[in-house]
Amino acid sequence: MHDFSCPLPSADFNHSRIQAGHGSGGKMTADLIRNIFQKYLISDGLAQGNDAAVLPIPDSTGRIAVTTDSHIVAPLFFPGGDIGRLAVCGTVNDLLTSGAVPVALTAGFILEEGFRISELERILKSMQMSAVEANVQIVAGDTKVVEKGRGDGLFITTAGFGWIRDDFQPQGDLAKPGDAVLVTGTVGDHGMAVLCARGELGFQSDIQSDTAPLNAIVEKLRQTAPSTHVLRDPTRGGLGTTLNEIAVQSAVSIEIDEQLVLVSPQVRSLCDLLGFDPLYVANEGKMIVILPEADAEAALSAIRSCKYGENAAIIGRVTSAARPGVLLKTALGTTRILDSLHGEMLPRIC
Amino acid sequence: MHDFSCPLPSADFNHSRIQAGHGSGGKMTADLIRNIFQKYLISDGLAQGNDAAVLPIPDSTGRIAVTTDSHIVAPLFFPGGDIGRLAVCGTVNDLLTSGAVPVALTAGFILEEGFRISELERILKSMQMSAVEANVQIVAGDTKVVEKGRGDGLFITTAGFGWIRDDFQPQGDLAKPGDAVLVTGTVGDHGMAVLCARGELGFQSDIQSDTAPLNAIVEKLRQTAPSTHVLRDPTRGGLGTTLNEIAVQSAVSIEIDEQLVLVSPQVRSLCDLLGFDPLYVANEGKMIVILPEADAEAALSAIRSCKYGENAAIIGRVTSAARPGVLLKTALGTTRILDSLHGEMLPRIC
Repeated sequence: MHDFSCPLPSADFNHSRIQAGHGSGGKMTADLIRNIFQKYLISDGLAQGNDAAVLPIPDSTGRIAVTTDSHIVAPLFFPGGDIGRLAVCGTVNDLLTSGAVPVALTAGFILEEGFRISELERILKSMQMSAVEANVQIVAGDTKVVEKGRGDGLFITTAGFGWIRDDFQPQGDLAKPGDAVLVTGTVGDHGMAVLCARGELGFQSDIQSDTAPLNAIVEKLRQTAPSTHVLRDPTRGGLGTTLNEIAVQSAVSIEIDEQLVLVSPQVRSLCDLLGFDPLYVANEGKMIVILPEADAEAALSAIRSCKYGENAAIIGRVTSAARPGVLLKTALGTTRILDSLHGEMLPRIC
Repeated sequence: MHDFSCPLPSADFNHSRIQAGHGSGGKMTADLIRNIFQKYLISDGLAQGNDAAVLPIPDSTGRIAVTTDSHIVAPLFFPGGDIGRLAVCGTVNDLLTSGAVPVALTAGFILEEGFRISELERILKSMQMSAVEANVQIVAGDTKVVEKGRGDGLFITTAGFGWIRDDFQPQGDLAKPGDAVLVTGTVGDHGMAVLCARGELGFQSDIQSDTAPLNAIVEKLRQTAPSTHVLRDPTRGGLGTTLNEIAVQSAVSIEIDEQLVLVSPQVRSLCDLLGFDPLYVANEGKMIVILPEADAEAALSAIRSCKYGENAAIIGRVTSAARPGVLLKTALGTTRILDSLHGEMLPRIC
């Protein structure tokens, strides 16, 4: 789910046609949403500006979390995952950011005529395995077919819902000065794995996507640090853009230390070669956790004990500031503004 | 939402690639679902085989209805509607078939590079107006962009949920011998309106799509005939295919009288000209209602008092039978089997 009410500061909006950058998850997407989508689609859920909307359940004290994501990743299969696993994990992780227990998903399939049914089977099997791992059921589905040349193999749109627990309610606007900022592992793996899988670089790599459901990590976190303020998965736009979204929503400044953000040597090398900054490369199995400093070490240990959390690290802290934003302390000891991604760096990464 | 557990009888499945007919909503779609999707996606929700899955809400006696639909209609604008109105109404109507009060929708947008933002605005405005009319909120959204030539302007996948009321619980497997079969208006309007809007026929028509949210009709029905057994909207595959689905699910025979099924003169003429049977043409603002005979007249009057229900009619009845299916009493006085649609008659109609 993209944050439809994301109030990122941006330049005037005057594009007359959709461009690749409008799907980046960065500033151009935020512009499109603020200037076009928000004019018409206004609701309590969207106004919350989080990755999942939280709504009351009638005749009950309970609340439901709801989210959706369309998946257009190319290619459909990449080291460490495929569009099916991506669709299930992306939606599960968005639900987890609200503190919900993910319960059920829906899946809409848009197939291109001529698509191999054997490939569809591989993808469905992967969805099934990912759903079992994430302990969710796929409860409703739909299948449509478009003519050859009017689609691209397969697009999958998943929606999901889960139940909110009273004792664990992180939200994007709750980051407080003094909080610790933690990331559950290395960054940039997913985006670089998909890029390599396109086969356009002229060399092989063994970079694996991190696509994974983070239920276990979030459950551990709930047990050890129920007062966690913010959970958000740094997908499109990467760590840099997602931290900016949180900074604006919570009206705080966030300072992170570049040397504390783990990047695998393979991802680092490839980014250096191609001129990419791993801080803006998409992740699909990582969570940003912002929580009171006092709980940070216990949370870190708990997360590190989980599958998918071995490389968790505290990377910075929240400071109060007149101007919300993200500051990066570089390896050279200097400090610079870490802005949101503007347009498109790696199209069709999720 | 397509019925992923639809157990229609069908020939052996041995296609190796996706064909247009797999998106028809008829037998080829059912084959794909039964032979491929059902191997992997198995859940209580899908096993119900209805247009919306119904699931329990924890720590509550309540239940939630969930559904999804992908929309690929071409062209995006047609007399009487557009892809935005279609997406909202289709999902609302699927929720209504379970007896739920529709509450909220999610929407995933897959945009093609170069798509005019002015057209996006028209569509969003239409979604907003339809959502207001149907009394639902769009609570979560997502936007993705694909390269020019990898999509077709805009696809929208909506998911929706609603709350089930204890006093009104129609289901596809509840049709009983002796029940009356009612349709809330003329059939074939939507499919023919979209076909004409493609501009390939070489003449103009004034056929309007019936795309509409049917909340008011279903609410009237709940008040006058709370014991209604089945509600289902005859979309892809039309009245004929949808009645067959119900016949199989409920293990009954359904007999309808061709002369009682209303078809507008314009739709009738165009179907005659093109060799289409209006009983297989998609509707987007109609509901099939199957209910005890004793309640039928009161329900009919109530539905006729509603906007979108003026042309409601009782078209037949449910009979017991050794072999579930649909029989059509023709205008000539003969009776023939009304089978499900096999492949694709009108592609990309919704």
